[in-house]
Amino acid sequence: MARIAVCLSGCGFLDGAEIQEAVFTLLALDRAGAEIICCAPDKLQAGVVNHRTQRPEHEEEERNVLVESARIARGNIKSLSKIAADDIDALIFPGGFGAAKNLCSFASNGPDCTVDPQVERLTSDMLEKRKPIGAICIAPAVLARIAGARKIAVRLTIGNDPGTAAAINRMGAHHCPCETTEMIVDTEHRIVSTPAYMTGKGPADVYTGIEKLVNEILTLAN
Amino acid sequence: MARIAVCLSGCGFLDGAEIQEAVFTLLALDRAGAEIICCAPDKLQAGVVNHRTQRPEHEEEERNVLVESARIARGNIKSLSKIAADDIDALIFPGGFGAAKNLCSFASNGPDCTVDPQVERLTSDMLEKRKPIGAICIAPAVLARIAGARKIAVRLTIGNDPGTAAAINRMGAHHCPCETTEMIVDTEHRIVSTPAYMTGKGPADVYTGIEKLVNEILTLAN
Repeated sequence: MARIAVCLSGCGFLDGAEIQEAVFTLLALDRAGAEIICCAPDKLQAGVVNHRTQRPEHEEEERNVLVESARIARGNIKSLSKIAADDIDALIFPGGFGAAKNLCSFASNGPDCTVDPQVERLTSDMLEKRKPIGAICIAPAVLARIAGARKIAVRLTIGNDPGTAAAINRMGAHHCPCETTEMIVDTEHRIVSTPAYMTGKGPADVYTGIEKLVNEILTLAN
Repeated sequence: MARIAVCLSGCGFLDGAEIQEAVFTLLALDRAGAEIICCAPDKLQAGVVNHRTQRPEHEEEERNVLVESARIARGNIKSLSKIAADDIDALIFPGGFGAAKNLCSFASNGPDCTVDPQVERLTSDMLEKRKPIGAICIAPAVLARIAGARKIAVRLTIGNDPGTAAAINRMGAHHCPCETTEMIVDTEHRIVSTPAYMTGKGPADVYTGIEKLVNEILTLAN
């Protein structure tokens, strides 16, 4: 049974993990018989956004990325710092602004973003050990930054937004346009990405793309 | 296109809607081509639980049911008070303790629970108009209370927990045991229920039961 880590970044697409993308990843992994290991960085979120008004309304409010991610994982979650590349066969990052706010600073700094140290450690180790990595929605920005800093030119998609694609390329990756129901596979670097809600209109199409990504990751992991 | 309201109760199984059950409901509805109308009561949650430690840790913390539910619905959500039975073809309640804490007080008061006035209004109107209602996990407790108070003996399942089943029966319903991947259909009263995480071990089985419920609800609605 393949052991697949799913790295969450909170709970809610405006300040954490995109909930539907995260749940679809868990569903596709469980259907394929994989062992799921949810994890997240144990630190404060970059901010809290009211998802009804879509605005940050209470600047003093603090939430912890790991604690909020535990809502999606039903409490069955580990601190990212406890996960080593040797413990897992593959690593998947669902999207949501949390990937660009809590896993790295892409949402505010674009191609000059910094990456959370634990995300950088585990992802770098996975790249070095040639273990597969999946990235959904905006999460490929994290991978572009980590791989680009190591002069590894990975093929990735964030869908078809020109500005975001240009930023991905500026970090040293090759952006490839992609439909919601499809994926981009970088066979050389064992990286799979799908745009999900970067382009998706609803749950059914987004699930189709994520299920393809998960099954490709499992094929690469075996 | 059938218009299906999905009534959420927050975001996280210990103090709100069970996230995976809610997302699976949306996925099955979208796959079947239904129009989804997410809604939730606009009021404070009964409490906030840390989902990592599984304990209520900050008694002063307040979260709003509608605002947190908006995380699952990606902001596309209405206050329950704005939804009328005439606007929709069916109503579905995902589970999670939120259904037993925020939609009614079953978690603390058992069979003597009270029901949120907006939940009671819409559910009663749906029963009266003979429009189908789906209830997942612990959410059938809400239905048992509302129907029982009207001397309507509905057939329902919450899985196989003897204490909870007895409480359901004490409210005037007929509890039927059910596997995670199956559902109980009360054809007379047009009510469908599935135990989901009351008995479920993981996403794949829980999705199977919820997809059956959703497809049965859509058949009844047409």
